[in-house]
Amino acid sequence: MKVLVINCGSSSLKYQLINMENEASLATGLVERIAIEGSKLTQKVDGREKYVLTVPMKNHKEAISHVINTLLDDVQGVIKSSDEISAVGHRVVHGGEKYSASVIITDEVMKDLEEFSQLAPLHNPPNIIGINACKELMPNTPMVAVFDTAFHQTMPEKAFLYGLPYELYKENHIRKYGFHGTSHKYVSQRAAEILGEDIKGLKLVTCHLGNGSSVAAVNGGISVDTSMGFTPLEGLLMGTRCGDIDPAIIPYLMDVKGYSYEEVNNIMNKKSGVLGLSGVSSDFRDIEDAAAEGNERAKLALDVFHYRVKKYIGYFMAAMNGVDAIIFTAGLGENAAETREEIIADMEWFGIKMDKEKNKVRGQERIVSTDDSKVKIIIIPTNEELMIARDTLTLLK
Amino acid sequence: MKVLVINCGSSSLKYQLINMENEASLATGLVERIAIEGSKLTQKVDGREKYVLTVPMKNHKEAISHVINTLLDDVQGVIKSSDEISAVGHRVVHGGEKYSASVIITDEVMKDLEEFSQLAPLHNPPNIIGINACKELMPNTPMVAVFDTAFHQTMPEKAFLYGLPYELYKENHIRKYGFHGTSHKYVSQRAAEILGEDIKGLKLVTCHLGNGSSVAAVNGGISVDTSMGFTPLEGLLMGTRCGDIDPAIIPYLMDVKGYSYEEVNNIMNKKSGVLGLSGVSSDFRDIEDAAAEGNERAKLALDVFHYRVKKYIGYFMAAMNGVDAIIFTAGLGENAAETREEIIADMEWFGIKMDKEKNKVRGQERIVSTDDSKVKIIIIPTNEELMIARDTLTLLK
Repeated sequence: MKVLVINCGSSSLKYQLINMENEASLATGLVERIAIEGSKLTQKVDGREKYVLTVPMKNHKEAISHVINTLLDDVQGVIKSSDEISAVGHRVVHGGEKYSASVIITDEVMKDLEEFSQLAPLHNPPNIIGINACKELMPNTPMVAVFDTAFHQTMPEKAFLYGLPYELYKENHIRKYGFHGTSHKYVSQRAAEILGEDIKGLKLVTCHLGNGSSVAAVNGGISVDTSMGFTPLEGLLMGTRCGDIDPAIIPYLMDVKGYSYEEVNNIMNKKSGVLGLSGVSSDFRDIEDAAAEGNERAKLALDVFHYRVKKYIGYFMAAMNGVDAIIFTAGLGENAAETREEIIADMEWFGIKMDKEKNKVRGQERIVSTDDSKVKIIIIPTNEELMIARDTLTLLK
Repeated sequence: MKVLVINCGSSSLKYQLINMENEASLATGLVERIAIEGSKLTQKVDGREKYVLTVPMKNHKEAISHVINTLLDDVQGVIKSSDEISAVGHRVVHGGEKYSASVIITDEVMKDLEEFSQLAPLHNPPNIIGINACKELMPNTPMVAVFDTAFHQTMPEKAFLYGLPYELYKENHIRKYGFHGTSHKYVSQRAAEILGEDIKGLKLVTCHLGNGSSVAAVNGGISVDTSMGFTPLEGLLMGTRCGDIDPAIIPYLMDVKGYSYEEVNNIMNKKSGVLGLSGVSSDFRDIEDAAAEGNERAKLALDVFHYRVKKYIGYFMAAMNGVDAIIFTAGLGENAAETREEIIADMEWFGIKMDKEKNKVRGQERIVSTDDSKVKIIIIPTNEELMIARDTLTLLK
């Protein structure tokens, strides 16, 4: 049984075909510049050379059609018939308060996704386009929606409510939702396996650090709090996103600078974060290079980032009355040894001690705390696609 | 030597005359409804009945004139000549980045205060009016400005910078300033005295909880982080202020509800916090009563408040790599035993244990942790007026 996982953005699309017998990835691919000049599909299959197809794709349906054709291709393909794709699992960013788990996509679900687009105007619309394109091309294949918000729906009210008028929650659905849920869930489950313990008894702080970053408090296998909020803007500062700020700054900027709310929103989402602070780049690798060469603002941007992650770890330890393991995942969390080291520095008071030698590793599952550290520190490469495929399989059974 | 302390709001004024020989308060008073019908001065002197003067006061100069006359009054007064007032210490909310300590008020200082009014439009203008009125009435008496922001000027860049474009800091002074500094400083110094230790070796988390609330991390006697930010809106939720929210909520509300930024600002500052969540009141006592009577939203508002304070304690413990003592002060912190108990509940993992019996006390200096608690928990009634008077005295010498 094979599951196709689709993660559809506004002009790009990631896919992966997974054999669920052994959870092996058969092919992974990326379509870029959909509906833009220079559309390109790149596919990787273990043991083969990377395949690149450059062909105009004027919409998502054409892109997905090329994905299926590539998977079926005599030379580049990995399956013989599209019937081998038992189901498609779609990553969907926002599932509102209604979806606390993955769901088989029906007309009712589609209606809900349209409604949630108001809450995630940048993300849900391309997700919906991707689902519709797949439905047209594979009308008889079951489709499943796996939500980025679902894992965090277990948060208690005291964690998800803002100090705003209660009516804004009841009538306008303004609350903390949290994102990256599939990743936080995957690494939590994997941490329990690595530790050989029942997840029900574990307190975990999971740090998903990449271009978008969030930290979650996972107690007994369920999310009890997370740093992202109503949108993915809240919490840590990120590549271009500001994270937590004094909310009064927004009306202040509108007043003294004459900005519109769209302009402020654009600054907060696109021109802030480590890019805005460093003035160098939104890519942490560029900033680390600049810092190594003595760029003070680059160093500062990294300092602020590390400090924020450290504080969120403290935040969530207090929320759970302790922690058994701290998990690092995603682009930065998996690969950037120095980032992990800086975040964990000076936490001995809590019994959190990193083995700096063990920590010198990239993208590898490994416990990097010292043997006498009360709290385990674990690097776990995330695998959202596998999590989506697993949920899809579970729903089909 | 006697110092008059003045805390001037837009329509009210608090004062205290302190004898610096023994730091005893000679008289405390409050003027309400300045320039509003029903102006009233209330003065308390130890061992005497409360004195109330109801007389029209059409501006702050008239109010302060009545304060001086009352202090000099044959029956109600406590001094014989205004010459006995050696200096006046003024509470000033915003000292910008320039003032990291109290300062004797000169023309240059006044110019700076005017400039900082842009950063604190609700607070600095009445502070300035109060200073000018005092200067007119006591032209030969030295005046000192004691800033709410000054104590926090020791915060490192990683703590005071937001993840916004660096230019907004350099050109528009947008950064975390922090407030309640005089209170955080007072209770920190007092904590060191109570513990009989050198403040230089102490890590403290100071919780100033009242109608406005903030938490600070005080390491070695200096502030290294605090929950309030660019304005007093950030951080904990408060009586009517929202505290931390996803900044994206503001453009969202402006978009879907058609609010202006002034309207959103008003909601965040005046209609949010425990008032907005509970729908009951901005006064914690009312909310506690309602919760005790089974009001679910009142209970919820308290839950959210307690949880936020607990998380900030975790935040700052992580920032300092531990804590020696947690201090509770201000209206709620000093008086609300249940509030303290709820905040400190379930923190044993950190070695933080409250003695619930000792904690049953109001407005009294007391260590309320258990004997085996690794971290001390101390109630310390704040005394901002004394701190202002001490700074004033120090500058005069």
